[in-house]
Amino acid sequence: MTAAPASTVSVRQLAQAARAAARRLGILSTEAKNAALEAIAARLEAGQAQILAANAQDVAAARDAGLNDALIDRLLLTPARLEGIVSDVRNVIRLPDPVGLRVGERTLDSGLQVGRVRVPLGVLGVIYESRPNVTVDVATLALKSGNAVLLRGGKETVHSNRVLAQLIGEALAACGIPEAAVQVIQDPARERMLELLRLDDLVDAIIPRGGAGLHRYCVEHATVPVIVGGVGVVHIYLDPSHTASEADVQAAVRVIHNSKVQKPSACNALDTLLIQQEALGALPAIGRDLTEAGVQLRADPAALGALQEARVDAQPATLDDFGQEFLALTLSIRTVQTLDEALDHIAAHGGHTEAILTRDERQAQRFVAEVDSAAVMVNASTRFNDGAQLGLGAEVAVSTQKLHARGPMALEELTTLKWVVRGDDQVRA
Amino acid sequence: MTAAPASTVSVRQLAQAARAAARRLGILSTEAKNAALEAIAARLEAGQAQILAANAQDVAAARDAGLNDALIDRLLLTPARLEGIVSDVRNVIRLPDPVGLRVGERTLDSGLQVGRVRVPLGVLGVIYESRPNVTVDVATLALKSGNAVLLRGGKETVHSNRVLAQLIGEALAACGIPEAAVQVIQDPARERMLELLRLDDLVDAIIPRGGAGLHRYCVEHATVPVIVGGVGVVHIYLDPSHTASEADVQAAVRVIHNSKVQKPSACNALDTLLIQQEALGALPAIGRDLTEAGVQLRADPAALGALQEARVDAQPATLDDFGQEFLALTLSIRTVQTLDEALDHIAAHGGHTEAILTRDERQAQRFVAEVDSAAVMVNASTRFNDGAQLGLGAEVAVSTQKLHARGPMALEELTTLKWVVRGDDQVRA
Repeated sequence: MTAAPASTVSVRQLAQAARAAARRLGILSTEAKNAALEAIAARLEAGQAQILAANAQDVAAARDAGLNDALIDRLLLTPARLEGIVSDVRNVIRLPDPVGLRVGERTLDSGLQVGRVRVPLGVLGVIYESRPNVTVDVATLALKSGNAVLLRGGKETVHSNRVLAQLIGEALAACGIPEAAVQVIQDPARERMLELLRLDDLVDAIIPRGGAGLHRYCVEHATVPVIVGGVGVVHIYLDPSHTASEADVQAAVRVIHNSKVQKPSACNALDTLLIQQEALGALPAIGRDLTEAGVQLRADPAALGALQEARVDAQPATLDDFGQEFLALTLSIRTVQTLDEALDHIAAHGGHTEAILTRDERQAQRFVAEVDSAAVMVNASTRFNDGAQLGLGAEVAVSTQKLHARGPMALEELTTLKWVVRGDDQVRA
Repeated sequence: MTAAPASTVSVRQLAQAARAAARRLGILSTEAKNAALEAIAARLEAGQAQILAANAQDVAAARDAGLNDALIDRLLLTPARLEGIVSDVRNVIRLPDPVGLRVGERTLDSGLQVGRVRVPLGVLGVIYESRPNVTVDVATLALKSGNAVLLRGGKETVHSNRVLAQLIGEALAACGIPEAAVQVIQDPARERMLELLRLDDLVDAIIPRGGAGLHRYCVEHATVPVIVGGVGVVHIYLDPSHTASEADVQAAVRVIHNSKVQKPSACNALDTLLIQQEALGALPAIGRDLTEAGVQLRADPAALGALQEARVDAQPATLDDFGQEFLALTLSIRTVQTLDEALDHIAAHGGHTEAILTRDERQAQRFVAEVDSAAVMVNASTRFNDGAQLGLGAEVAVSTQKLHARGPMALEELTTLKWVVRGDDQVRA
């Protein structure tokens, strides 16, 4: 891993080194990649004291800069968290290698044997914010899928990332893998990020991981293709058939609670409850449960009436409360007359994760067919839209765009397909 | 199809109408889409006189503007060409509908049933140049794959496109499909194209079809994801094992001739021959065949020597002759010592279509594994990198980027996958 100061090495030079490394990574065997991953895990374990000392520098700097406790917690490493990071590296060893898989092979009338083979994307640029675990996560998933990666972390974790990068580089070198396979852009200046975003002759994809502002900046400035994600308004539609019995109501309370409360800062946390008017009888139970968990409710007139009548704390919703990603313990509630009205609302504001709670299979089928989102769920918490929860074994990012990858991105999403054609000196007529 | 003048309808308004249409297209049955395609074919047949009259206006305007014969031929429609266009529409009816296909369904330990289903991308923006057949091709492929499309053709074909658009719109309306499914941006001003490129809240993908300048413009200015393609330098590596016998040499002559001469203006036409030095004995036969077909040869010193000794006409190559897409009857020739040298050259300059001519299976395997291009070929003409030739049945464009689609794009490449999760009120632990 190149750790030279940015003043002497441009991002273009790092990318050129990455491109050269990518050629070698693309033809590594699964065994060689797994051996390198194990070397990384071992090196991170051996370097625990060094990592924690660097992280303590970042934490001290963050305190001096007046960052709040939540932000400091995001960048904090502990022995237990480091153990989790190392364990994630070993999980990646166990995941199947997507590179080399063959798709759609056949022999055409011309006698040509055609098919496609999975190959790495090549060089990835990943731009992220405070969590230092992303450095290791992304480096190991890129390595397993045969990609070189340029990492641009947040300035709050510069010391942690430098040490993590150095240890990963040592592990790669010990395995005979080019250190330029994983490089950290050390200079936190925005100009360096801009340089990365425009290297379309050298970098195959940019994956931003962070808030809406970071994603927007990448979309506005990149000439490299960007995989946008992580941002979106999440809806649940509650159909009256799911409130017919006390048990149904309790199940709805549980799913809505989990979707909203389990991790309110996550991109798949619930933002808006769409409730069919005949289901309003269940709203006090749902609202009481949520307010007891500290959730602020912002309801339209019909829903507000149902809540206030049952003495559940709620405020009137404004138009701004719909189509808004809260990332906090706030929920907007809208009453709809029909499923169609809910589908229209979701078409206008959704696209990330939407769920229906219903006992009516026809309603479920319409919802699944007509909602155009990265993930559509029936009778399940929206929090399941996650690489690990959907059985992918890992997650690089969650895409909300439609090109290339949609929803949780794991190893396969870091690859592409190459056509392979074998002939017997055929020519085109 | 909306044919209102651009002065009264903004591109954003067209895109909003397209978005609304896309919701209905996404849930159309295959039968309904095929019926609309047949209606389009019939309407184009019935409207032949009207189409040819409009096209004659475009041709007359092009002659007045002093366009050369090759350019005029690109925009010219004849009864036979129109018959070909209609026949292509009926071919699309016969292609399988990718929408609704299910991928990777399984039940997880949590009891969740997860899987992905193929769905349309949504709203496509296609920007193209003179050929009016593209208007019909793209409209019908978009319709079959359930997408709404905004078409921005060249100003040279404005009359032809207006009539084609009108006939398609009439056919859609007769089938009860929203006319906004296919809309032409009538105003040829560059500002309208720029507006389209930046509608990332409404348009899911931009597909440019044209020269390198158009693709670059889209990459530089779009905030909508762009699928870049159509541009690339094409290489053949000639291994000496493919020149061992007279029959081998003749086969090499035939494949190289076809790659270069069959359609020199195509993106998959050969640009550079990389010849291993021990194969130079075959170069005079190759060169003589090409110069007789009118090809200008630009050779490095070793190749130039071999050609001149055999009195084959050739010029010295300059550095600029490598890494250049000629789109004309010009071929650059470089002599290499080894396969590795050829692979390095291709890594620096290739990426679209590369072929090896060899009788040595190990060389073929290395070439296939190590060349990172949209299509890699063994003993076949580079002209086979084409949707129809590779058995896809159609082609919207040829992608040379790695994200989403690589190589010829047909119906499947106009779709994406949506996660569908069905549960029994599960919550995340």
